Amino acid sequence: MSLHRVLNAQSVAVIGASKNKTKRGYQAIVTLHEENYEGKIFPVNPKEKSILGLKCYAKVTDIEDEVDLALITTPAETIPNILRDCGKKGVAGAVIIAGGFREAGEKGKRLEREVVEVAKECGVRLIGPNTSGMMNLKIGLNLVGIKNAPKGDIALVTQSGNMALELITEASIKSRKGFSYYVGVGNEADIKFHEYLNFFKNDPDTKAILMYVEGLSEGRKFLQEAYNATLVKPVVLLKSGRTSAGKKSAGSHTGSLAGMSEVALTAFKRAGITVIEDSDKLFPVAETLSSLPTIKNNKVAILADGGGHATIAADLLTEAGIEIPELHSKTQEKLRALLPWNASVKNPVDVAGGTDSNPKLFADCVREILRDHNIGGLLLVGLFGGYGIRFAEELKFQEEDAAHQMGKYVVKYRKPIVVHSLYNFLKPHSHELLRYYNIPVYDSLEVACKCIESLCRYGEYLTTYHREVSFVINYRKKAHNEAEKIIANALASGRSVLLEHEAKKILKIHNVPLLEEEVCKTPEDAVNFFKKIGKPVAMKIVSKDILHKSDAGGVKLNIDSEEKVREAFDEIIKNAKNYKPDAEIEGILVTPMADEGLEIIVGTKIDEQFGPIILYGIGGILVEVIKDVAFRVLPLSRGCAKRMIDEIKSSKILNGFRGFKPFDKKALIRLLLAVSDIVESYPEIKEMDLNPVLLYEESKGLTVVDARIILKSK
Amino acid sequence: MSLHRVLNAQSVAVIGASKNKTKRGYQAIVTLHEENYEGKIFPVNPKEKSILGLKCYAKVTDIEDEVDLALITTPAETIPNILRDCGKKGVAGAVIIAGGFREAGEKGKRLEREVVEVAKECGVRLIGPNTSGMMNLKIGLNLVGIKNAPKGDIALVTQSGNMALELITEASIKSRKGFSYYVGVGNEADIKFHEYLNFFKNDPDTKAILMYVEGLSEGRKFLQEAYNATLVKPVVLLKSGRTSAGKKSAGSHTGSLAGMSEVALTAFKRAGITVIEDSDKLFPVAETLSSLPTIKNNKVAILADGGGHATIAADLLTEAGIEIPELHSKTQEKLRALLPWNASVKNPVDVAGGTDSNPKLFADCVREILRDHNIGGLLLVGLFGGYGIRFAEELKFQEEDAAHQMGKYVVKYRKPIVVHSLYNFLKPHSHELLRYYNIPVYDSLEVACKCIESLCRYGEYLTTYHREVSFVINYRKKAHNEAEKIIANALASGRSVLLEHEAKKILKIHNVPLLEEEVCKTPEDAVNFFKKIGKPVAMKIVSKDILHKSDAGGVKLNIDSEEKVREAFDEIIKNAKNYKPDAEIEGILVTPMADEGLEIIVGTKIDEQFGPIILYGIGGILVEVIKDVAFRVLPLSRGCAKRMIDEIKSSKILNGFRGFKPFDKKALIRLLLAVSDIVESYPEIKEMDLNPVLLYEESKGLTVVDARIILKSK
Repeated sequence: MSLHRVLNAQSVAVIGASKNKTKRGYQAIVTLHEENYEGKIFPVNPKEKSILGLKCYAKVTDIEDEVDLALITTPAETIPNILRDCGKKGVAGAVIIAGGFREAGEKGKRLEREVVEVAKECGVRLIGPNTSGMMNLKIGLNLVGIKNAPKGDIALVTQSGNMALELITEASIKSRKGFSYYVGVGNEADIKFHEYLNFFKNDPDTKAILMYVEGLSEGRKFLQEAYNATLVKPVVLLKSGRTSAGKKSAGSHTGSLAGMSEVALTAFKRAGITVIEDSDKLFPVAETLSSLPTIKNNKVAILADGGGHATIAADLLTEAGIEIPELHSKTQEKLRALLPWNASVKNPVDVAGGTDSNPKLFADCVREILRDHNIGGLLLVGLFGGYGIRFAEELKFQEEDAAHQMGKYVVKYRKPIVVHSLYNFLKPHSHELLRYYNIPVYDSLEVACKCIESLCRYGEYLTTYHREVSFVINYRKKAHNEAEKIIANALASGRSVLLEHEAKKILKIHNVPLLEEEVCKTPEDAVNFFKKIGKPVAMKIVSKDILHKSDAGGVKLNIDSEEKVREAFDEIIKNAKNYKPDAEIEGILVTPMADEGLEIIVGTKIDEQFGPIILYGIGGILVEVIKDVAFRVLPLSRGCAKRMIDEIKSSKILNGFRGFKPFDKKALIRLLLAVSDIVESYPEIKEMDLNPVLLYEESKGLTVVDARIILKSK
Repeated sequence: MSLHRVLNAQSVAVIGASKNKTKRGYQAIVTLHEENYEGKIFPVNPKEKSILGLKCYAKVTDIEDEVDLALITTPAETIPNILRDCGKKGVAGAVIIAGGFREAGEKGKRLEREVVEVAKECGVRLIGPNTSGMMNLKIGLNLVGIKNAPKGDIALVTQSGNMALELITEASIKSRKGFSYYVGVGNEADIKFHEYLNFFKNDPDTKAILMYVEGLSEGRKFLQEAYNATLVKPVVLLKSGRTSAGKKSAGSHTGSLAGMSEVALTAFKRAGITVIEDSDKLFPVAETLSSLPTIKNNKVAILADGGGHATIAADLLTEAGIEIPELHSKTQEKLRALLPWNASVKNPVDVAGGTDSNPKLFADCVREILRDHNIGGLLLVGLFGGYGIRFAEELKFQEEDAAHQMGKYVVKYRKPIVVHSLYNFLKPHSHELLRYYNIPVYDSLEVACKCIESLCRYGEYLTTYHREVSFVINYRKKAHNEAEKIIANALASGRSVLLEHEAKKILKIHNVPLLEEEVCKTPEDAVNFFKKIGKPVAMKIVSKDILHKSDAGGVKLNIDSEEKVREAFDEIIKNAKNYKPDAEIEGILVTPMADEGLEIIVGTKIDEQFGPIILYGIGGILVEVIKDVAFRVLPLSRGCAKRMIDEIKSSKILNGFRGFKPFDKKALIRLLLAVSDIVESYPEIKEMDLNPVLLYEESKGLTVVDARIILKSK
């Protein structure tokens, strides 16, 4: 059901309305009045006739008019019955303020399940419980009690009322921007993050979506909705609950799931989300992204009136991977003509005192820099706005003139400007003007740099990245009959681990390169296979009852004569029987020894929040000690597989190292895509582990030496 | 010469004094008047009789009184002659404002050299050139022109006038702290960073030293002075010019040296410096460290009135390596008695609405938490100070009461409190009170967390780290005669690369484990040596004319019979003569093949800023691809060598890995210390390269397989 009627409610029943000024049920009505709510308000309280001049109803079903939304301020245990009434009345949604649900132990969990069931039966959608409330600022529907929140075009969705209060306070004090909606998701019991995302994506009054997230209950749907949303408008997200201490805190606070998994960061970025790790930068980045054109070419100019700020900014932007290219020689000439002899005009541009008595010059410099075809955006750092304060009052008019011009240049050249000024504290009028033209001003250099960075990253995403990504899994679409049979057969016989040759068979069906192999029932079979191959072989026990083959003495390597094959066969069988006398032995798997190559590890598992994910790394110490691995949410695209390979720290090994020739990256990409296909095809698969894979030099492919597939137990 | 007379000047000559209001030579005198400078002011300008009511002198030598300091506001080219006058007059120091020196090309560099020479001859110490000036706020000696800078106990030393302006503005708007001195070091042509450090270490009115550094000209002296200073008071430093873009910017700005080298960060930390990478946190950290007791046990409690802030803070502190331990059960009981049923009392503590109508409770919670023996300090996050603003005005008196109590608890329990409050913007009186008690308040959670972190790090440093560190090199102290001869001999014969067996001989003299080896002149010698050893050998050409032995076919490995030794000898000689017919061949170095072990790399070089440094890593891909290496400025202490080994990402390999037993860390520590001794003993050494070193399992030691020593060319 669409959330439109809930979030744009034209009438609100306040259940638990009160005459007691300290109660939420009183304050809520006062706030709706103060904020000039456009809709109707119906207090509900069986003990009162009227509250604050409004007729008071005993039950929500007594209300004559239609009711879109109920604000429920009563305690947890009253909620189920109230929801039943709401259902009868045809109320579209309810905001449940009370805590005492999932975050408060077993009893609370049961109550929350009941509440969700009742709501589903009655067709009432729930915001919360354990929420600070929601606001639709366009119509004055303020069910939170934060007063004077600035109206604007940013939708705010948080899992913490305090964070909402902080962001709203910050917006009202430090910017000209504001909010279209606020939703506190609370325990996310019914309406989930991704549903709000979908709603705000389609809301014409919302230009950016700002989220504070401690944990997601439906990670994959969130990614898909975020992916759709970020094609239309920026989504900025603070990822909290990253550490075990953070997770514990989040758990006791919203009862949210396991915080953020290791795959979250790349998944969010692939979905085009602007991820912030630092609450100082959350609102500024949303402000910037909702106001300015993005930077398409990752190239930024810095304009400064002092060396220190230019140096710090150059460091920060470079560390963020942004280029600060030398300006075009013509741009340099023009700047040279504007500025004193000792100015730096390459980039960073340092005016070297040129603006001291003439701050209007800033606008001229900005014009020349933005006209440079190679420059995608501009960061102005230093004292702008303070010349009229520090030097001579008249200069402030020049600064205001410059602000007007800069504002117009942003529109004319379709390139953003972000300003750092240490006079921001003192709120000079020129800063107000810059903000009027959507040019944000910050007193923190780090914040200003992060904003520029976010313009680069989002610009890059929109121009390149998104085309190839999908978070939708088409189960069975690429499935093969024969593989399905192997899986069904294993499950039917009560096994959740496929035998090695079964796992390899499935890989083979999906065109993964493997060595020829045979399950041999007798020593003679093994010898014949050995003769056919004409190379040393490896021999491994095949038994559903022996999963740790080496421990059972069930593996022999490098066997290079007929006689030794025979001996090994007997010994393996003997060892296996000693290890587990009643083991059902299917035979012995014989494969040629693989040629030496680079050890690769590929694995998949089911992530709690995001579902199937894949892991890739170069085997040995790089994976085991350095943890140098890349994760992705499945399915993979070709580009994504490529980026995964290039992303690990040791990726350059693939380009050839210590005399090796470059390795066959194309084969590796094909392997990752095949694994993605396999996991997508057979939803029964819980884990895959290809370890080792041996990768050979360019055009020589690879071989999967060992493979394990674990199925979901029924 | 001591800087005391310079920085506490009782009389100032303003050279370039002017009646023109736009000139620095006018403004400087006005500022000194406005700031009630306690000393005498002497304007100097041959064209004027008096300026601003003061008698004006044609030359500094005309002044009747003693002159401690000259502020020189005239252009670059006038400086040498003015300095000569200052010398004649016995002026102790000069502040040179003008730019146009090292930062401005070759001509400027020559002028700077001249200025420094003249100053040295005349006995005048220089601040600058290219500086914004200096201030001694205690006596009103303000030679900068930043007005109303708050007085206090922080000494500020920067390489950027804008950064000074920013920090001073921040202090005056956001804190109750201020500055004892400010020095803009400018081009650091004469007085260097480390001399200021030394002066401020000894200044009784300075409690903390705050520095913005883009590059150091005398890195090692800086480390030594910082090491001495941080034992007495905190030194907080923003390291700028970290990236190539940052370095370029710094270069064009102050003409400073190559920014910061890779070893800078660990070196600064070893010297006890609190290094900040983010200008937002620079002043707050200095404020905190100069105000509060440090945290000795790395254990912090978080007290919050909302889950979001608690979660973010828990994440940030955990990511910074700080423990957030569960509170003692008795503390939990006491908190439980104070707070509502649904409060979290473990840590983070969440008051869960308990303070909504009773913010005085914060002080009670703080008391119980600080009394917990396991807790070293407290971070209070959320709304404190805003209860009187948001809920009911009366609550502000409760908050003020709580602030008074918290202030006293800091003193009583000798543990710090840092406060985050989103109402900081609105400057409630309770925050002013907290600051009066030296409890800092920040609106940024990140800043507050960084401050707590800095209290932990500095506390840890003071209790453990510093005892074993020295940055002083005692050249030759541990030198051996025989090794000195090898080096002298090489240099005398015009060689700057020692032959392998010479390098190894020096290692052997310093008790580094090596395989037995012999330079054999004939095949018979080689055969005899082979027989004596009774193991396969490696044979390598010894010639000062053949440094790339493998390229010359001069290396044979794994030779395991007398006949093959003979053959190899002849072949190596033949190859060498083919490679370089006129090569002078000393013989062939024969060594037993080393047993397999873990490949280690140890190297030393001379760093531009810090002098001799050492590098350590585990050989192969870990060093070459992952760059997993640790650097230290030499000399090493035992503890420092140990930390170096533990610091690399792959350090756990040494504890045993993939079936290996733990490796012999003690032998590795001995090796690093021996290398440190060698570099310290022989200042002629420019670079050492021990690659590979083979490390064996515990108590089995190591072997240096190949060694290279390069000498400084004369």
